[in-house]
Amino acid sequence: MIGFRRNHFLGALIGIPLLMTACVPNKSFLVIKDQGSFAVGGSVIKNEGTFDPIKRTPEGQTFHGDHAYITYQIPAKARQFPLIFWHGIGQFSKTWETTPDGREGFNNIFLKRGFGVYLIDQPRRGNASRSTVPATINPTPDEQTWFGTFRVGIGYDYFPGVQFAKDEETLNQYFRQMVPNIGGFDTEVITNATSKLFDKIGEGVLVTHSHSGGFGWATAVKNSKIKAIASYEPGSGFLFPENEVPAPVESSAGPVAAIGVPMSVFMKLTKIPIIIYYGDFIPEKPDPNPGADGWRARMEMAKKWRDTVNKYGGDVRVVHLPEIGIKGNTHFPFSDLNNVEIANLLYKWLKEKGLDK
Amino acid sequence: MIGFRRNHFLGALIGIPLLMTACVPNKSFLVIKDQGSFAVGGSVIKNEGTFDPIKRTPEGQTFHGDHAYITYQIPAKARQFPLIFWHGIGQFSKTWETTPDGREGFNNIFLKRGFGVYLIDQPRRGNASRSTVPATINPTPDEQTWFGTFRVGIGYDYFPGVQFAKDEETLNQYFRQMVPNIGGFDTEVITNATSKLFDKIGEGVLVTHSHSGGFGWATAVKNSKIKAIASYEPGSGFLFPENEVPAPVESSAGPVAAIGVPMSVFMKLTKIPIIIYYGDFIPEKPDPNPGADGWRARMEMAKKWRDTVNKYGGDVRVVHLPEIGIKGNTHFPFSDLNNVEIANLLYKWLKEKGLDK
Repeated sequence: MIGFRRNHFLGALIGIPLLMTACVPNKSFLVIKDQGSFAVGGSVIKNEGTFDPIKRTPEGQTFHGDHAYITYQIPAKARQFPLIFWHGIGQFSKTWETTPDGREGFNNIFLKRGFGVYLIDQPRRGNASRSTVPATINPTPDEQTWFGTFRVGIGYDYFPGVQFAKDEETLNQYFRQMVPNIGGFDTEVITNATSKLFDKIGEGVLVTHSHSGGFGWATAVKNSKIKAIASYEPGSGFLFPENEVPAPVESSAGPVAAIGVPMSVFMKLTKIPIIIYYGDFIPEKPDPNPGADGWRARMEMAKKWRDTVNKYGGDVRVVHLPEIGIKGNTHFPFSDLNNVEIANLLYKWLKEKGLDK
Repeated sequence: MIGFRRNHFLGALIGIPLLMTACVPNKSFLVIKDQGSFAVGGSVIKNEGTFDPIKRTPEGQTFHGDHAYITYQIPAKARQFPLIFWHGIGQFSKTWETTPDGREGFNNIFLKRGFGVYLIDQPRRGNASRSTVPATINPTPDEQTWFGTFRVGIGYDYFPGVQFAKDEETLNQYFRQMVPNIGGFDTEVITNATSKLFDKIGEGVLVTHSHSGGFGWATAVKNSKIKAIASYEPGSGFLFPENEVPAPVESSAGPVAAIGVPMSVFMKLTKIPIIIYYGDFIPEKPDPNPGADGWRARMEMAKKWRDTVNKYGGDVRVVHLPEIGIKGNTHFPFSDLNNVEIANLLYKWLKEKGLDK
């Protein structure tokens, strides 16, 4: 009998470690060690005087605003460097969440690959709408302008082969993932909030989109906790040494200008790996369609910038997806129909740069 | 040897089911089967004419707005009825997330107890800021007014024994969880969005706070997929039979009025279990401090409402937390220092009503 019990015990000893390695109820589930949300950055307005709690007049009252709002999730056994996702113009954290046609976005995809994920709503946007400056918001019908600027199509027509589901509900969800900006853009306010975020959470990889491309470069030069940047379709705000600012690149959407900074500031951009992705339907030559032509100018400026940063010892790569055989992407490759393939590219680059540990 | 192998196999057979029941890497981790976000409800403005993608003028363009923005998480082995959390005035989904002093909010607490969790940003608020009506937003310092209305204290002073951490960063986070309303409140727009949410996700328990208390009753009478309502400190919007509307209850914060509806509409509120919680520091008699006295009037109206609904066969309970020995709660019991105790009360009630299956 003793022998019998010992053998069962040994069997369980073999079984238990096998189960421990397989100990996720279902491989497609997320196992989250920690999740939460907080405000970071911003400033305080304080009225003169002393507050009267009976009369409740403005004297002595405060207003805390211009912070960013952050949600985060850390998976079990998370890799060392989390990914910090920053939306573009008119967008908020939704950009990285469920896609307009209902599939998983980059937040779920990278959580499942073991990365901590932080989602930013930048100051004066979405859940960080508590702005310290006044604003007048008008509901201006302009969604077809965005449809074109986002290179989903032109007019009411989808581009042939576009990586975007063509049903009405997808477009409904897509248009509803926009929110107004509450007051003007203040680069200092915006970049300070993200810089404070990195001060709070430590080192990580910044992932930007469009308008936040420029904000990302501007934050990286003030905070070295940004270990690397992956930027999807950065629009403007490329920082050059102040004596080497190229002329604006013209387009039918207007000129794309660059920004000059002191060399000591610029050199910080040579210290971290940077990758930039552009999608499909970008004209090769000047085009009267401003929605797409603006991107021709922006990608041209991005390549000038890559060349300048690399000339000074940097590590910038610009990937034009159709040139590597990936067709049909819009301004939002990370939420397009082929977003898993796009995620694979990013993961491969992170691995190549040793940022996947 | 055959006997040896069979005994090990049997040992593993015993070990494996034991492990399966304990198969969560760490009891405090969240195991999420599905999570995502989407827009629901709203309307579309469409300009006359045909869109010109070169000129990009307003003709023929659309504007999708006035939807609610929803984030959801479904745990592994979720109970049948999810909880749908609806913020109050000036707030957004943050209300239910990490508390101002950094502890877990009701979203994490109830996910860990096996409930699906849906968080609403109502139309024209936060991440659902895409409003179909214009708005002017002014950064008005008024946080001490809220400090009083939220019964954290009076003036700059905390109430003695208040269930609220007194450090500066907690107050900083607390004030920054407010966002502006983009345009006026439209009860139809707001309640239609939540009603559409329940149409989409099926039956669930609605959890409201303050201003959404009234919206909750108004949605429940139009959608029977709302199986029950738990309301924290509902402020206004109590629905009475149109011939039995009580006189407004006066307070130093102004009168608290009720709303009359046809009897056939009112009777729907008698069909579902409802529980209402009020916290501490509510004056027993009229008080010159409007921040607290408004709640005396609102709780009084809530009790009149309870009595009326129950008279007609309903199941409404009003719990005044200090009267059951739970002291120090503010207007936000679910995020106060003792929020686990508050969660336990809610869980107990759900169980009592068979809503925990």
